[in-house]
This record gives sequence, structure tokens and C-alpha cells, in this order.
Amino acid sequence: MATTTRIALAERPIGEPKDSDFRIETVDLPELEPGQALLETLYLSLDPYMRGRMSAAKSYAKPVEIGQPMVGATVSRVLASTDDAITVGDVVLGYGGWQTHSVEPTSYLRVLDPLQAPVTTALGVLGMPGFTAYAGMRNIGQPKPGEAVVVAAATGPVGSMVGQLAKLAGARAVGVAGGAQKVAMLTDEFGFDAAIDHRADDFAEQLGAATPDGIDVYFENVGGMVFDAVLPRMNLYGRIPLCGLVSGYNATALPDGPDRMGLLMGRILTSSLLVRGFIQSEFAPTQMADFLSDIGPKVADGSIRYREDIVDGFDQTIDAFRGLLTGRNVGKLIVKVTGA
Amino acid sequence: MATTTRIALAERPIGEPKDSDFRIETVDLPELEPGQALLETLYLSLDPYMRGRMSAAKSYAKPVEIGQPMVGATVSRVLASTDDAITVGDVVLGYGGWQTHSVEPTSYLRVLDPLQAPVTTALGVLGMPGFTAYAGMRNIGQPKPGEAVVVAAATGPVGSMVGQLAKLAGARAVGVAGGAQKVAMLTDEFGFDAAIDHRADDFAEQLGAATPDGIDVYFENVGGMVFDAVLPRMNLYGRIPLCGLVSGYNATALPDGPDRMGLLMGRILTSSLLVRGFIQSEFAPTQMADFLSDIGPKVADGSIRYREDIVDGFDQTIDAFRGLLTGRNVGKLIVKVTGA
Repeated sequence: MATTTRIALAERPIGEPKDSDFRIETVDLPELEPGQALLETLYLSLDPYMRGRMSAAKSYAKPVEIGQPMVGATVSRVLASTDDAITVGDVVLGYGGWQTHSVEPTSYLRVLDPLQAPVTTALGVLGMPGFTAYAGMRNIGQPKPGEAVVVAAATGPVGSMVGQLAKLAGARAVGVAGGAQKVAMLTDEFGFDAAIDHRADDFAEQLGAATPDGIDVYFENVGGMVFDAVLPRMNLYGRIPLCGLVSGYNATALPDGPDRMGLLMGRILTSSLLVRGFIQSEFAPTQMADFLSDIGPKVADGSIRYREDIVDGFDQTIDAFRGLLTGRNVGKLIVKVTGA
Repeated sequence: MATTTRIALAERPIGEPKDSDFRIETVDLPELEPGQALLETLYLSLDPYMRGRMSAAKSYAKPVEIGQPMVGATVSRVLASTDDAITVGDVVLGYGGWQTHSVEPTSYLRVLDPLQAPVTTALGVLGMPGFTAYAGMRNIGQPKPGEAVVVAAATGPVGSMVGQLAKLAGARAVGVAGGAQKVAMLTDEFGFDAAIDHRADDFAEQLGAATPDGIDVYFENVGGMVFDAVLPRMNLYGRIPLCGLVSGYNATALPDGPDRMGLLMGRILTSSLLVRGFIQSEFAPTQMADFLSDIGPKVADGSIRYREDIVDGFDQTIDAFRGLLTGRNVGKLIVKVTGA
């Protein structure tokens, strides 16, 4: 009987997740039923949305239950299959979660071609994060030539795609990141027109200088002080695709006042702004194929760049995830699991 | 030489506008140039947006300058015209502002047919407020059959149209108003499915009972405590057309904390909400003709109802406007000026 070593949620974290919020355990996997495959995890994805799954608060998806393994996308090798379409040895994109092995319905799996692109890209630039950027820009942001697009966490797999999609649309791309290394990467590697360090004391002034004609699209994935500086600069008919608020994911209470909720509504009113929350799964059924056919070749030919931060070892998972919430990683954060 | 008695802005009001913030004065009107008409104001419109025009804060339109007359829509009689298309005696919709007479470019004027509908309707149900409701519902709210639509200030000219458009779309209309008289009017006169008094101690509970399946469209024109109760009840993919925040227009400072700006963004994210600020003028050039041809006949045949609150006498203007900001009026607030 196959076993898996997995990281289960032991307690709902309060604030930053602690080691003791999780339990590492080895358990038996069930026998394969028809239409299932036994998978060995090669790479597992760590993404900010997972912090939400650890919480019991109402959100767009059900929380992970206490005692259950953490969920998430994985790139895995097929060890056994009861479905003719999935062959032993195939490398597949699945949803195995934080564990070394998994049994999954084959209908969930997508066979990857390592010759087209490194298989890890299915977790980042050609996976959920890249598609999040694509869906938000296509459906909500809709940048026009000459407009200014701002995105934070801009070296991450969502932000770096947002910037490159802005450039493809003929817009001006302004990226925000933390620290000199990441800031330099934005202009040097990802082709942003301007890059700003959110740790700078004069961040708001720098943002003003980088967006002299205001901001037309703010792709929101972090919240917090970046949004505070962006909001007064939003132009008439500006658009704010909102797919994440990672800066607040560890917050345990609302910030002190004054209460700026009405101020935000007032700004949306006076500048006829559009703010639209979204999760990529809303658009995936109808637009994922377009994304892969539009963006896949651009990744293959190098015209769209990406950066991965691959942490070696399943035992690094929890600590790497903590780093994700504070911006320690550079590029798409992936854990290389034993066997890869 | 013709004169006008007008209400000019003497000082920018702090909080609720005071009499001393205005100056009533009689001044000479200029001689008519080609393409202008001399008008006698029959009715002048009072609308919440005018509070914004009194303020120097950045908004969607320039503030009225100190010393200049307050702006606004008017229904007027033509006393003289240098344009063959506008005849002496015509009753026209114009933008004369808070004054008894005006000289206006004839290109701004729309000749009204008193036989089709009472001329005052051009200021309310068939004017800017009615069109605001129409544009917000058509372009942003987009109610579907069976969905729940909530609107506040629901006996007003915007809110009552929102509710009736919701019903026409097959949605459930829930209205919020202040006081038993207005609440009764919502169900008895405007056909709302449910009506709630925002002054009730258990307002939030009543809203919950009236929207057992949550809220799909909240047409926002007031803000404040109604929005606080609505926000947690918004359904996945809910829409919030945002055209006004009248409850806060007299505010002089941000409310005390905690700061709920991030909370609002979080709700928009987790329920994939759409919040879109808008001013009817964005849509008027392309959709006003549709509005008049769709809604005009329904007003004429009584299938769309409306209520007007006509205050008699130009000298009542300032006090009536104060009442508008606190909900004293019932229905579209209009001042009947001497001569009507």
C-alpha cells in the first residue's frame, strides 16, 4: 500500500503561521478506484491564497479542515493509473497539496510536455498565477495604449505577468517591489518602464514621479500602504482588478482609525472607478485555452520572461510559505519535493 | 434690461449648509447673443450632487466658484430667443441654476411637450435622476430574474426608479427609506417587494429577513449605515453601482476607527464583487434617447410611478436643500419659482 507524507493543518494560525499550526504525518493512501491515478509529487506550489484556506473566515473557497492536508497545485509523476489517458511516467499538473504523494481523479490532471516548457512553469507563468494576471487584465484592467498600469509584488508570478501584459498592450508599466534587488529586476529583466521600492521613505512621492499623468489601472494583489498611495492617483474611469490582499493576510484585527471605508467609496464615486474582485477560476473555463495558446509560445520564445524561486526539500515548505507572506521569495515560489 | 434674482455661493459650507453660506442678489442679465435665449425659471431642481459643487474638494465636476450662482437643472419659459428653433412661450429643460431668470445657449435646451408628461418630470422621473437609475442598472447593476436588488433613499427619484426597473427585470426589489410614511409608500405606491425603515433599531436584522438569499445588486446612493448592513450580505458576483453617498455629504471629518477600508477591499475580493462609480453624464450621450423612448411611455401610461415634492417659492430654496440632505422631502424635490 502506498503512503504519503503530508502537512496537515493542526490549528488555524493566528497572525503569521507557526510550525505548531501544522502536523507532518505519514499516512496510507487509498487503493486506486477507476479514473484515479497515484502520483509522486515533484514540485508543489506555494501561493498567497493558501493563507485564506487556513482561516475559517468566509471567503471564496471553503477553508481546509483541521486535520486535513493543505491544498495546492502540484507537478507530479504518475506512478499508477486506472485511466488509459494517463500513463505511468507522465508528468502532470494536479492538485495534490502539501504532500509527497497523492491519489487524484484523472479528470483533474493535465499532462505536461517537458519539451514545450519546463514543467514548473505550469505552477507559475503558465499556470494559475500567470492566468490570474491574464484574466484580470483581459476582463477588468483592459489597458489601452499610453495608459499607466501599476502593480505591486511585481517580481512575483502575477505581478511580472501584469507588467508584461501591460507592455504588450502599449501601456506604461510601473512595478512596485521590496528591496533593491527586486526593483532592479523589474526594469532589467521584466521590462517595466519604472520600478519603485515600497520600503522607501518617499514611496508615495516616487510613485507620483513614476505616474505623472495618474494611474489608469492598478492591479491589486497586495493592499496596504501601496494601495493607500495609489488611490489618490487613480484617473477618471480607472480600473482596479482585485485578486489578492496579501499584505493583510496575517492581520488579526482591523487597523486603527480613522475609518476610511467611506473615503474609498467616495474616491470610487468621484473618479468613476471600477473595482472588481475576482478569482481566476471564474474565467478559467472559458479563457484558459486562449491563455495557453497566446502566452505559451511567448514564454517558449523568451518574449515573456519569468522567474522561479525553487526551494529544495519538502521539509522547507512551511518556512517557505511564511517567507511568501513577507516577500522573502524572488519569483514564483515552488518547493522541490524529494523525487524531483 | 432683464434682471435675475439668484442665490450665489458666499462661502463654502462646513457641514450642513447655512443661510449665511449663500447670498441672494438681483443682478442684470447680459443682452442675448446669437444662439441664446432669455428664460424665466418655472421650476428648479434640487439634487444631492449640488452639495459636492459647494465644496472645493476634488470631484467629478468643478466646484461652483465663490460669488457665482448655484448650478442646476431648471424648467423654464422662453421670454426671448435668437434661435429660430426655440420659440417665445416654449417650456424648456435647461440648466439655469438657482435663479429666477437666465440666459442660456439654446444648444443646451430641450423643448418639453406638456401634453406628453407634466413638465416637472423632466427634472425627475424623466430627467437626470431617472436616467441615473436607468444607466446604473443597465450598465452596472444588470439585475437578472429572481435576484435581489436593494436601494436606499428609495422614495427618491433615483431609488424609486431603481426599484421599478428591478421589478421590470424580474428581480426582487427591496427598498430602504426613513420613516413609516416613506416605507409604506415603497410597497403601496412603487411596488417594492419589501421595504425597511433605516431608523429601526433592528435595521440589519430586517434587511436580513428581507433578503434571505443575500443581495445581488446594491444600488448605492447614500452610503453610511445602510451600506454597513448591506456589505456582509452581498452575494458572489454582486454588483454595486455607486452614484452617490448623500449620507456623508455634510461630513467634516472621517469617522472614527477602526479603519475598514481593507475590510471593504477584502469583501470585494472574497465575493468577486463589482463596485463601479458613475455619473449619469458618462452614459447620457449614448443612452438618453433609449431611456426616453423606453421609460417615457411607461410614465405616461402609469406603469412607472413617480412622486414629486414641490416646494412653493424661490425663497424656500436653501431650506429645502438642507432638507434634501437629511431626507425631509418625499419624492423628487423641486422648487416652484414665482411665475410657474
